[in-house]
Amino acid sequence: MSANRTSGKWPHNQPAPLADGGLRIVALGGIGEIGRNMTVFEYGGRLLIVDCGVLFPEDQQPGVDLILPDFRAIEDRINEIDALVLTHGHEDHIGAVPFLLRLRPDLPIIGSRFTLALVAAKCKEHRLTPSLHEVKEGERRAWGVFDCEFFAVNHSIPDALAVAIRTPAGLVLHTGDIKLDQLPLDGRLTDLAGFSRLGDEGVDLFLVDSTNAEVPGFVISEREIGPVLDGVIQRANQRVIVACFASHVHRVQQVLDVAVAHGRRVALVGRSMVRNMGIAADLKLLTVPPGLLVSLDEAMTMPEDQVLFVSTGSQGEPLSALSRMARGEHRHISIRPGDTVILASSMIPGNETAVFGVVNGLVRLGAHVVHQGNAKVHVSGHAPAGELLFLYNAVRPSNVMPVHGEWRHLRANAALAVQTGVPEDRVVIAEDGVVVDLVDGQAKITGRVEVGHVYVDGLSVGDVGESTLSDRLVLGEGGFISITIAVDSATGRAMAPPTISGRGFSDDPKALDDVVSLVEMELSHTESEGITDTHRIAQHVRRVVGRWVADTYRRRPMIVPTVIPV
Amino acid sequence: MSANRTSGKWPHNQPAPLADGGLRIVALGGIGEIGRNMTVFEYGGRLLIVDCGVLFPEDQQPGVDLILPDFRAIEDRINEIDALVLTHGHEDHIGAVPFLLRLRPDLPIIGSRFTLALVAAKCKEHRLTPSLHEVKEGERRAWGVFDCEFFAVNHSIPDALAVAIRTPAGLVLHTGDIKLDQLPLDGRLTDLAGFSRLGDEGVDLFLVDSTNAEVPGFVISEREIGPVLDGVIQRANQRVIVACFASHVHRVQQVLDVAVAHGRRVALVGRSMVRNMGIAADLKLLTVPPGLLVSLDEAMTMPEDQVLFVSTGSQGEPLSALSRMARGEHRHISIRPGDTVILASSMIPGNETAVFGVVNGLVRLGAHVVHQGNAKVHVSGHAPAGELLFLYNAVRPSNVMPVHGEWRHLRANAALAVQTGVPEDRVVIAEDGVVVDLVDGQAKITGRVEVGHVYVDGLSVGDVGESTLSDRLVLGEGGFISITIAVDSATGRAMAPPTISGRGFSDDPKALDDVVSLVEMELSHTESEGITDTHRIAQHVRRVVGRWVADTYRRRPMIVPTVIPV
Repeated sequence: MSANRTSGKWPHNQPAPLADGGLRIVALGGIGEIGRNMTVFEYGGRLLIVDCGVLFPEDQQPGVDLILPDFRAIEDRINEIDALVLTHGHEDHIGAVPFLLRLRPDLPIIGSRFTLALVAAKCKEHRLTPSLHEVKEGERRAWGVFDCEFFAVNHSIPDALAVAIRTPAGLVLHTGDIKLDQLPLDGRLTDLAGFSRLGDEGVDLFLVDSTNAEVPGFVISEREIGPVLDGVIQRANQRVIVACFASHVHRVQQVLDVAVAHGRRVALVGRSMVRNMGIAADLKLLTVPPGLLVSLDEAMTMPEDQVLFVSTGSQGEPLSALSRMARGEHRHISIRPGDTVILASSMIPGNETAVFGVVNGLVRLGAHVVHQGNAKVHVSGHAPAGELLFLYNAVRPSNVMPVHGEWRHLRANAALAVQTGVPEDRVVIAEDGVVVDLVDGQAKITGRVEVGHVYVDGLSVGDVGESTLSDRLVLGEGGFISITIAVDSATGRAMAPPTISGRGFSDDPKALDDVVSLVEMELSHTESEGITDTHRIAQHVRRVVGRWVADTYRRRPMIVPTVIPV
Repeated sequence: MSANRTSGKWPHNQPAPLADGGLRIVALGGIGEIGRNMTVFEYGGRLLIVDCGVLFPEDQQPGVDLILPDFRAIEDRINEIDALVLTHGHEDHIGAVPFLLRLRPDLPIIGSRFTLALVAAKCKEHRLTPSLHEVKEGERRAWGVFDCEFFAVNHSIPDALAVAIRTPAGLVLHTGDIKLDQLPLDGRLTDLAGFSRLGDEGVDLFLVDSTNAEVPGFVISEREIGPVLDGVIQRANQRVIVACFASHVHRVQQVLDVAVAHGRRVALVGRSMVRNMGIAADLKLLTVPPGLLVSLDEAMTMPEDQVLFVSTGSQGEPLSALSRMARGEHRHISIRPGDTVILASSMIPGNETAVFGVVNGLVRLGAHVVHQGNAKVHVSGHAPAGELLFLYNAVRPSNVMPVHGEWRHLRANAALAVQTGVPEDRVVIAEDGVVVDLVDGQAKITGRVEVGHVYVDGLSVGDVGESTLSDRLVLGEGGFISITIAVDSATGRAMAPPTISGRGFSDDPKALDDVVSLVEMELSHTESEGITDTHRIAQHVRRVVGRWVADTYRRRPMIVPTVIPV
């Protein structure tokens, strides 16, 4: 295999200046991970950005709310950006927009109508007024040197776009998130004909969604979910609760249609569900028969077989309505034996335990729970291997760069490109920060810029870093033991017995009883050695307590000595 | 549906004394969860226990090493136990044995040869010498009033047994973990004929493994893994590393056979792999051709296409050999482009992120990674729905009690029992601690004993409880801010500026700069109010700092004030 693909070593060098007439591509997020998609294109000293999303944290990032793309590489060049193009309205593509706008409030944001409506709602929450520029599939417009053409693509949210970017360096096609449902609910097909036309013209670089590249075959049509929902809801003679993603308009449409068919009114539960479906209905992307929707309060007064709830919480989020129901803690809805709950959603990797926790809670209360593990109530929004082959054969690209995926997905996608005839040395597997230059029709890795994790925790961005997270991991595993000592600053003599307390260490109130005498002994030792420096005294105490707790308990709490000179 | 099955409310009352001639069944672990299986049978004031396993902790139990069954219900009756029967040697069935032996070192432990060999090795590590009594399939022996008959069952470890327990109250059959591979590698079939014979005699209560009850159909034979491994390893022309469970002797046997076929020597990697395969070879359960095994050091000197590693770490355990390889940190083995890694194992729910982290690390280094997601390199050890129907139809039980499962599995298993003709009111869905009495041929829930989580953390058992875990969760999410103040005990006046420090709160050294003046202001306030009680001063400080951090950062670190009277 070529050095480009499998060397196992990626460059650490800052790239050389971009060659004249070349196009530079750098992902600040979204390659080597699933989430926080953001790709920067550079030509002639100007920048175009595609997508600006967030990533949700994993176990090793405790307390973090969101992870942003790393803007450092463009911070000093923020006024060189001609536009931000958004392919669709999912959080992993638009979630970081407000944070980028803090750096440049007037950044032109380009996207389809629904995408921009979601961005506008998000920005409103951040009290920002973005500069929005609506585009449609089939449209071609230039921002600076970047001549962009937009193509309809099918995904798990309406109004998604792929973007072709023409510069003198060549033609680049970026799929965004994509699949090839041949019978989409809204009739809006992925524009394979358009892609073929681009292929005829010659696509120099093809950036391709890798999420499902490991999955063989094809996704069945979204349309096939409807009859399954119909069957389940027809059999229900009590309450029905359907949980799904709050942006999946077509899924909700099918639920509404089934509700109408079976004489049920519908209550929307969850802030994002209410907000997004309101937007979708306003834009005529969701058809809601008059009188179908009722408020939660109204729904609670109706006969149980005449109501249906559409709720968020399909990922087992602990504060969601569905989780509260599963714990028997929801203010309005208490699950009763015979109720039906449908999780019409995937399980995002990492959420399995939380989702099954919710399922078990609901089942324990007697609900009949239908989920993708026992019925066909979800289809993926991403093209698996069979559909990706169609894309490669339509586009016939000169160079390929898999995006949107962990390493296993990127490699699988690269292998598909090679199978369709793309030469191995023209398939560039990068990761976040890797610099790819398209020069003279060939894409090559030329260096690397630093891309780290930027954490949002509460109101502030970036002050929680690896050191704080590593402390949190230690504290979360073993708690801490604090030892507070007041010493005479002249002699180093302890002014009182040390105050010992532990949190997250033991439920046993006597667990640390032995520490007092241990510390006192150490203090008389430091005093006798003439040690008065509080920092050194603290070091001694930390060492002796750490050793004691390792020997006695074989645990590693954080040891926190505080020595106060009085 | 009957009250027995779906009331959604389980009793909280202590059960009445067991009726004369009745048999009582209480699970101290393993029902409502997967793991720490332990079921207590009581007849005529005497006890028999089946299995004594551990559960591995989830995210909500940070720092915990193991979770034990709750022994409280039998602690005072420890000398009334006639025997502990172990169905097989997996950790979730034997892992808590050393902890039970601490309460009663001479407890008779009954099991098959391989099971007892694993128990003996485990007890040796705990410096215990258990009283072991070997039994074989087909054998029938009584311990006290409990007349036990053992049946061969097929599972993902050799030498597994089901146990039939006869008392004057009736005949109970407990499957242990079970599946119905009709072409097992060792030819040792689940004894369906024996189960049918019991069915003829009349099984009053059938306790059935629920793990795969939600999965339709049948498990393919373990035997079908061999050819898949053969195909992958035949194509490999560099190093091959196979990771699997350290107790899966038949899986390892197939790997060894393939290694022989392709002229590769084998190095075992990982302490438990080396130990268990040594035991299996000694007991002639594993056939190892002479000269096949080499040490890791030898393996490193051999040509790469003549060696194969069998390793632990298939669950992504961060300290395992495989995880180290994926991070490029293994002392001996560095993964190179073109190496082959096979994860011949399932993903235990909750481990998905860790396992895929390892896969991505290996793929990034250029390895070809084969796992159950892209090849048939694993089959489950538990009977899915189709096989469970065979069991119900062979046994034709009067009463059924699903065991070994979360709520979703228990309900699915119960539904299968009903489909085969067991009356709904004879299917008892219990959970840990629920007391089921078999009286006059009918099993009924009669009460509940308290069963909590018993945590092992380091050397001690039980001192880490819910309060410690809840502190760890707070600390792990937000860290802490400590405020140390020395006050004049007579006046409550601060003797020095407060010492403020945060851990796990922020990487920004100035993040807490404003806290000093905030606390000083509060202290002058408490002093002016004449407050000298250190506890009350601490309360004031905690409140004011907590409010500040919520307003400023929208975070919730633990606030830890220490007020020292001087």
